[in-house]
Amino acid sequence: MHIKSLLNIELPIIQAPMAGVQDQRLAIAVTNSGGLGSIPCAMLSHAQITEQIEQFKAQSDGSYNLNFFCHQTPADNPGALQRWQQQLAPYYEEFNIQPSNSAGPSRNPIDQQIVELLAPFKPPVISFHFGLPNRAILQQIKAWGTVVLSSATSVAEALWLEQHGADVIIAQGAEAGGHRAMFLETDLSAQQGTFSLLPNILNAVSVPVIAAGGIADANGVRAAISLGAGAVQIGTSYLLCDEATTSTLHRQALLSPSGKHTCITNVFSGRPARGIINRAITELGPISEIAPQFPLASVAFAPLRSAVEQQQIGDFSHFWCGQNNSGCQAISAAQMTKQLSAGLTGVSTNAH
Amino acid sequence: MHIKSLLNIELPIIQAPMAGVQDQRLAIAVTNSGGLGSIPCAMLSHAQITEQIEQFKAQSDGSYNLNFFCHQTPADNPGALQRWQQQLAPYYEEFNIQPSNSAGPSRNPIDQQIVELLAPFKPPVISFHFGLPNRAILQQIKAWGTVVLSSATSVAEALWLEQHGADVIIAQGAEAGGHRAMFLETDLSAQQGTFSLLPNILNAVSVPVIAAGGIADANGVRAAISLGAGAVQIGTSYLLCDEATTSTLHRQALLSPSGKHTCITNVFSGRPARGIINRAITELGPISEIAPQFPLASVAFAPLRSAVEQQQIGDFSHFWCGQNNSGCQAISAAQMTKQLSAGLTGVSTNAH
Repeated sequence: MHIKSLLNIELPIIQAPMAGVQDQRLAIAVTNSGGLGSIPCAMLSHAQITEQIEQFKAQSDGSYNLNFFCHQTPADNPGALQRWQQQLAPYYEEFNIQPSNSAGPSRNPIDQQIVELLAPFKPPVISFHFGLPNRAILQQIKAWGTVVLSSATSVAEALWLEQHGADVIIAQGAEAGGHRAMFLETDLSAQQGTFSLLPNILNAVSVPVIAAGGIADANGVRAAISLGAGAVQIGTSYLLCDEATTSTLHRQALLSPSGKHTCITNVFSGRPARGIINRAITELGPISEIAPQFPLASVAFAPLRSAVEQQQIGDFSHFWCGQNNSGCQAISAAQMTKQLSAGLTGVSTNAH
Repeated sequence: MHIKSLLNIELPIIQAPMAGVQDQRLAIAVTNSGGLGSIPCAMLSHAQITEQIEQFKAQSDGSYNLNFFCHQTPADNPGALQRWQQQLAPYYEEFNIQPSNSAGPSRNPIDQQIVELLAPFKPPVISFHFGLPNRAILQQIKAWGTVVLSSATSVAEALWLEQHGADVIIAQGAEAGGHRAMFLETDLSAQQGTFSLLPNILNAVSVPVIAAGGIADANGVRAAISLGAGAVQIGTSYLLCDEATTSTLHRQALLSPSGKHTCITNVFSGRPARGIINRAITELGPISEIAPQFPLASVAFAPLRSAVEQQQIGDFSHFWCGQNNSGCQAISAAQMTKQLSAGLTGVSTNAH
């Protein structure tokens, strides 16, 4: 079945779920423009998840994608956290901030409680990051008829996902912003760019493949489809859209010359993610051996980021961004989706 | 002017110059198939350069590209070399090899002597790696009517090349095999994939742009052209071709599962280059602080590699390879060029 039928969309464009910079409003706008809107759920409370789904359904009859993380929550590790707090202590002093134990919103993996909360909705599409949830959870979700997506950063990860029940694989090229989906891979230097990863995954699996990473405009969409993608997933280009909740500091960073310079860092969360290079990355990373396991690294970071942001300084903020931010524009998500799909008429996407 | 007219070729396909694994024979086959054949000159003696050009001209009336490096030859640094030799000493012992002072072929930058040797040929195309040669040399070359190409790994490098006289820029995405062209950039973690680098360079310069990195088959060629490239440069897919001089060990590595795993290393030459991960890279790198400046690191490596290769072991060989080797086939370069250009009819390449 073609991926557009499978996902029930007119355009082969998926708006990437981006926790912290968007809610259901961006998803509604994209779905109502013919693409697939995504709601990132990893940083939402149970009540917020329900509310955002209900809001979506009140304003759109179309398809939607809920995104969840499925990492293992690490055991408490006070020693690791303390070493990290010591590493950050000079910054607390510099900005005259009292260390606090309030962690701010963290990232939670999907669990049985969330599954029960989702059951009445039978969401049309759910995407996972960092692999797939356990078999019991996955079986309940698939029994709803939900189409299950997950991201791979290597052929080995794509094969694993296909074997473990993913209906569609997102090939996440190294250019992509935000958290690397890596769940089997550990070597950042071996992460492949989209031009390499996408064809290699297409050669290896028989499920449909969505391309992600570096795709910023209509040329990029057509190029990914030429390479064999059934659809594309685009995040960065939506970051300046009216419906995104991207902070003013993040928007400024995207528009500044520094917005062109990204790297993969683990200092903000404990897992590798691509963001705009800033002081925190330069001084603490980009890869820190001291950063506690995901998502614990963010616990000590959140109060610092929050207090420094109140001084209008983004030095300790995670400004997730892909390598190619040339498509960012402060327009509506409907206009963006229309621009991204320009020239698609006549291009036959790969049914694969 | 369209890049195909500029380079006097029918197909928008440039065979990447690959020092050490090919000579004029591969170039002749590609040019005679409608693409642009390239002769890598950085490891050739003056006599060999002349001979290969003459051989080419005897067997083809078409266009050809000569590739030269234009690094600064570093001053002798016996201390650095000695530290590197000490690093490698256990391997000499393990393989029962006598350290030798014969360096084997190294890499030389273009100089006035080479310019004088080239003058009678007025080569149609010359490409440079690591920037551009000095103004005096560049002016002589451009006065012949030669079209000058050079590779950029960032927008800053592309702008520099355009400002300093390059007629065409090769956008070398992070996926590409062999030496990174980096001459202003130093941060490997900031190197962009082709999906990001190509559109960003196209947005910044007004000269034609050739895409390189991860392009392995006809889908890849069409994708790069969709992204706006005037032509593509392809290396890895030609490595198994009949006319390439790729060693048996290198061919075996390309066909083995390990051939899918590359990284960027400086251990073989002193400059970052992408190759298949092997024992030398794993144990000494991938990035070694001790490796002497390019090309000195190769001086101590060459005898080791050579002796170990005689035992049919590739543990210390630089098996350059891009991230996407899915296009490698043991066929003629004519067949490869034909396959790469399949489906190009009707695709209008960007005149840019």
